[in-house]
Amino acid sequence: MLKFFVLTIFPEFFESPLHVSILKRAIEKGLIGVELINIRDFARDKHRKVDDYPYGGGAGMVMKPEPIFEAVDYVNSVTKSSKKRIILLSPQGKIFNNEIAKELSKEDELIIICGHYEGVDERVKTLITDEISLGDFVLTGGEIPALAIIDAVSRFIPGVLGSDESAINESFTDGLLEYPQYTRPEEYRGLRVPEVLLSGNHREIALFRRRESLRLTYEKRPDLLKKAKLTEEDKKLLKELNINLE
Amino acid sequence: MLKFFVLTIFPEFFESPLHVSILKRAIEKGLIGVELINIRDFARDKHRKVDDYPYGGGAGMVMKPEPIFEAVDYVNSVTKSSKKRIILLSPQGKIFNNEIAKELSKEDELIIICGHYEGVDERVKTLITDEISLGDFVLTGGEIPALAIIDAVSRFIPGVLGSDESAINESFTDGLLEYPQYTRPEEYRGLRVPEVLLSGNHREIALFRRRESLRLTYEKRPDLLKKAKLTEEDKKLLKELNINLE
Repeated sequence: MLKFFVLTIFPEFFESPLHVSILKRAIEKGLIGVELINIRDFARDKHRKVDDYPYGGGAGMVMKPEPIFEAVDYVNSVTKSSKKRIILLSPQGKIFNNEIAKELSKEDELIIICGHYEGVDERVKTLITDEISLGDFVLTGGEIPALAIIDAVSRFIPGVLGSDESAINESFTDGLLEYPQYTRPEEYRGLRVPEVLLSGNHREIALFRRRESLRLTYEKRPDLLKKAKLTEEDKKLLKELNINLE
Repeated sequence: MLKFFVLTIFPEFFESPLHVSILKRAIEKGLIGVELINIRDFARDKHRKVDDYPYGGGAGMVMKPEPIFEAVDYVNSVTKSSKKRIILLSPQGKIFNNEIAKELSKEDELIIICGHYEGVDERVKTLITDEISLGDFVLTGGEIPALAIIDAVSRFIPGVLGSDESAINESFTDGLLEYPQYTRPEEYRGLRVPEVLLSGNHREIALFRRRESLRLTYEKRPDLLKKAKLTEEDKKLLKELNINLE
């Protein structure tokens, strides 16, 4: 079981998302656990203040160090090991991806700190092991990224996905975009499923899918195609598509 | 007002996140609206099936085209214009970023379709104007990315952020990572705030912050530093830091 300790000033944010679909099932099966820790509970003053003005001036508020340090102390005091990975979600972090998700899925306990306001006091970074960003966009806080991490990481924990779903997860790891998918009906609003998919010819279907996967990756994410491990057959297909990677 | 129409098979996912912090405030002020459309309401058969097996075989289920087409028809029938942008959240999409968020914030109405299962029937792509991915990681569905988009886009709508917060938003647009921030107390667990920030010397503080911003961006995201617009003073600071961008 992987237990996530999420340090946040908005624990109520997580109520409904953790009760839906795969995360709900994973929690019910005891494969993951999510404990929400309200950073405000560790504020010392009577107003339970978790933020303050930045030294040196400037816009916005900065999250104070003490409540975060003490919330981490608390988590360490109720868990077996004090050597867990501690993630800070911040725009300065390393961009999250599936490799990081897979790596994190091997841990027993993870602390995720959700930043807010202008940022968190820099001294908090002496606590953390991983600074992670979801991407080059600005969000109000670390809560949405925390959910994304919990979801992406949980998908790598054995038993969280059915065997069918696991296969899907793995299909992304060859580094190409997924081929186009079609389901019933055969025709809808004049749009037909490609004939080859109805042919029953498995060899042709596999070729069609690989070709489309290569073509789509080339058109939409050439950066991925350059990094992908391609077989000799892939290279032949690329030649047929007049795609030259040099 | 920007109205988001979110097409999802899990509308209950959004309950708590839309009632917290800045999104809650933006909705209450009437600056944004979020209407959740349950795709399952547009399923025609008695089991209200929204997915089916993929043509050509393979793992996982594919979201059927009809309920999604009809849900989009419904939205167009209750809104003024049928020419709105329609976003599909999928791993094959363009990677979301702050420029896309800014651009989307200028719309009056947006449809966001949350994908699930192995994917959605390819014919749905004839409907959409933007295919967007949050990043190179696999999530259970488009619900978490939809939240991220609603949040990041809303932050660009005038009035959603206070003037202080807006300034923060803009600070990210110069393409560098944020400088380190500190707040009270001056010393905590032996860790002190850098003296310069306590000095009251605004010129020195500005220089310190810009230098740290450049240094952090160089260390953590050299890709951003290469794309950033640097002033002559920035170049001098980089020289002092022994950072050579060539």
